[in-house]
Amino acid sequence: MSQKKSSEPTPLYFVGIDGGGTKCRAELYDTTGNLLGAGVAGAANIARNGDVARQSILDSVKAAIEHANLPPETLASTLACGGFAGANLPSASNALKQWQHPFHSFYFTSDLHTALYGAHDGANGAVLVIGTGSCAAALKDGELTQFGGHGFLLGDKGSGAWLGKQAVVHTLEAIDAIQPKGQLAEAVCDHYQAHSATALVDKLNQANPGVFGELCPIILELAHHAEPTAQALVKEGCEYLSAIARKAIQQSNGALVLAGGVAHALQPLLDSDVQAKLTSSTHGPEWGAIMLYQHGAFNQGANA
Amino acid sequence: MSQKKSSEPTPLYFVGIDGGGTKCRAELYDTTGNLLGAGVAGAANIARNGDVARQSILDSVKAAIEHANLPPETLASTLACGGFAGANLPSASNALKQWQHPFHSFYFTSDLHTALYGAHDGANGAVLVIGTGSCAAALKDGELTQFGGHGFLLGDKGSGAWLGKQAVVHTLEAIDAIQPKGQLAEAVCDHYQAHSATALVDKLNQANPGVFGELCPIILELAHHAEPTAQALVKEGCEYLSAIARKAIQQSNGALVLAGGVAHALQPLLDSDVQAKLTSSTHGPEWGAIMLYQHGAFNQGANA
Repeated sequence: MSQKKSSEPTPLYFVGIDGGGTKCRAELYDTTGNLLGAGVAGAANIARNGDVARQSILDSVKAAIEHANLPPETLASTLACGGFAGANLPSASNALKQWQHPFHSFYFTSDLHTALYGAHDGANGAVLVIGTGSCAAALKDGELTQFGGHGFLLGDKGSGAWLGKQAVVHTLEAIDAIQPKGQLAEAVCDHYQAHSATALVDKLNQANPGVFGELCPIILELAHHAEPTAQALVKEGCEYLSAIARKAIQQSNGALVLAGGVAHALQPLLDSDVQAKLTSSTHGPEWGAIMLYQHGAFNQGANA
Repeated sequence: MSQKKSSEPTPLYFVGIDGGGTKCRAELYDTTGNLLGAGVAGAANIARNGDVARQSILDSVKAAIEHANLPPETLASTLACGGFAGANLPSASNALKQWQHPFHSFYFTSDLHTALYGAHDGANGAVLVIGTGSCAAALKDGELTQFGGHGFLLGDKGSGAWLGKQAVVHTLEAIDAIQPKGQLAEAVCDHYQAHSATALVDKLNQANPGVFGELCPIILELAHHAEPTAQALVKEGCEYLSAIARKAIQQSNGALVLAGGVAHALQPLLDSDVQAKLTSSTHGPEWGAIMLYQHGAFNQGANA
């Protein structure tokens, strides 16, 4: 672990940050652990777009400082610790270490690590994150093991972005008339206001995962009303999610906490052995990040 | 259709260009249709990376001019007409129209259009392209209808890049131990010299389709030797390819020509009704591009 300058005064504030594929949340605390303010900003997946992520981190912390009625200069006396999507990838993590951040000091790890640490108060246990992306992880005697979480292109099955992407793939095949065109395909075209394959591809070919995630509530609603394609997608996603959650439960030999914006909706559809291990979270990932710092458990210190 | 300057002398040469996701090929002809030289350069998918595509177009034509033992200045007296992957997307096509190209004049359409026109000598017929991407198309009384060809993220099933991507997705699940780890997963790790999920994702998360396509020969070889996952992927791909080819055959009411680097290997695995419609190509897509110009059938003129 590194700090900004070893001769600097101790920090006056702590900020815990939770950065995912769609939102970045920050909670500002005083040194005795009282919550002073909270802030939210945009996407902070450091593997997808480092510039955007750094801006979101900064914006969320500034918003928390403002919410606490503290002056902007507070940044320099605030120790920041965060968990960010993509931080498990060496290339992304190494890039973030080079950041000339404005904080007192800056520590980070993956969003999964902070979520897991907060969820079980540092004890052994598992977490299943279902948001824009998807991932499971186990904490066993301080050691983190990850299952899934391979990103939008190569994994993240069952997540909001994956459900959306699969719905678009289906819609394109329905437009080509090699799949039946049902309610899901109609809803996808309506949502993006794109009624030809060319218009859909032109709009979505380079789109962020979050843009695909917009379809998630529509897909869940249609699945709930037994639309066959939506139902099949949700089923395939939940089978995968149950499989990675089961691995994490076995690895940690503990209980499972759910996290992420899509978790609540999919929880009843997970396999029963996985549901039987569910427990509620002790703390959020923001506080989990601060605990990780305090327990000296950060494995990646930021640059000076 | 537009030309560089209406007062300019007529071109002394014609170059037909075929630009796909991995390679760009150019054939240089004199005004009576004699082949003078040919050149090859890198990727020319104008929807994926316009700068790279323009450079590949230029490099392939320069190589053809050099191959013909003509001086570099030949560019300015050469009429260029090409078919490019991605040209069916308005955003990509509009960007290419702005190109300040060095040719006498420049006309383009999709690579599918030129392949189809060359394959059936301008007559009604269908084409199934299986290369880095995949696509089928029908030409009926001069009108082109496309099936598939929705790109690496949202379609291109059965293509080299799709087979490779699916093999990587499988390998990541095998590393997570939620799928059995067989020969295919071992071969994927060996090929990319990446033996953990993190290493694989870090290497491939932002990789071009061509990098995934590198796996195609390995997958086909394993499928040939009955490796179950490779066999299942090839089967799923060929079912999709047969479906879009069937649509194109019905639409054109004509015969089917295969094109693309993976077509030869997958041909015996296509559905028998599709195979029954196969015929060989009359001309290549490079000559197809020149015929499209000569028949006044280009629907997209380039800028002056």
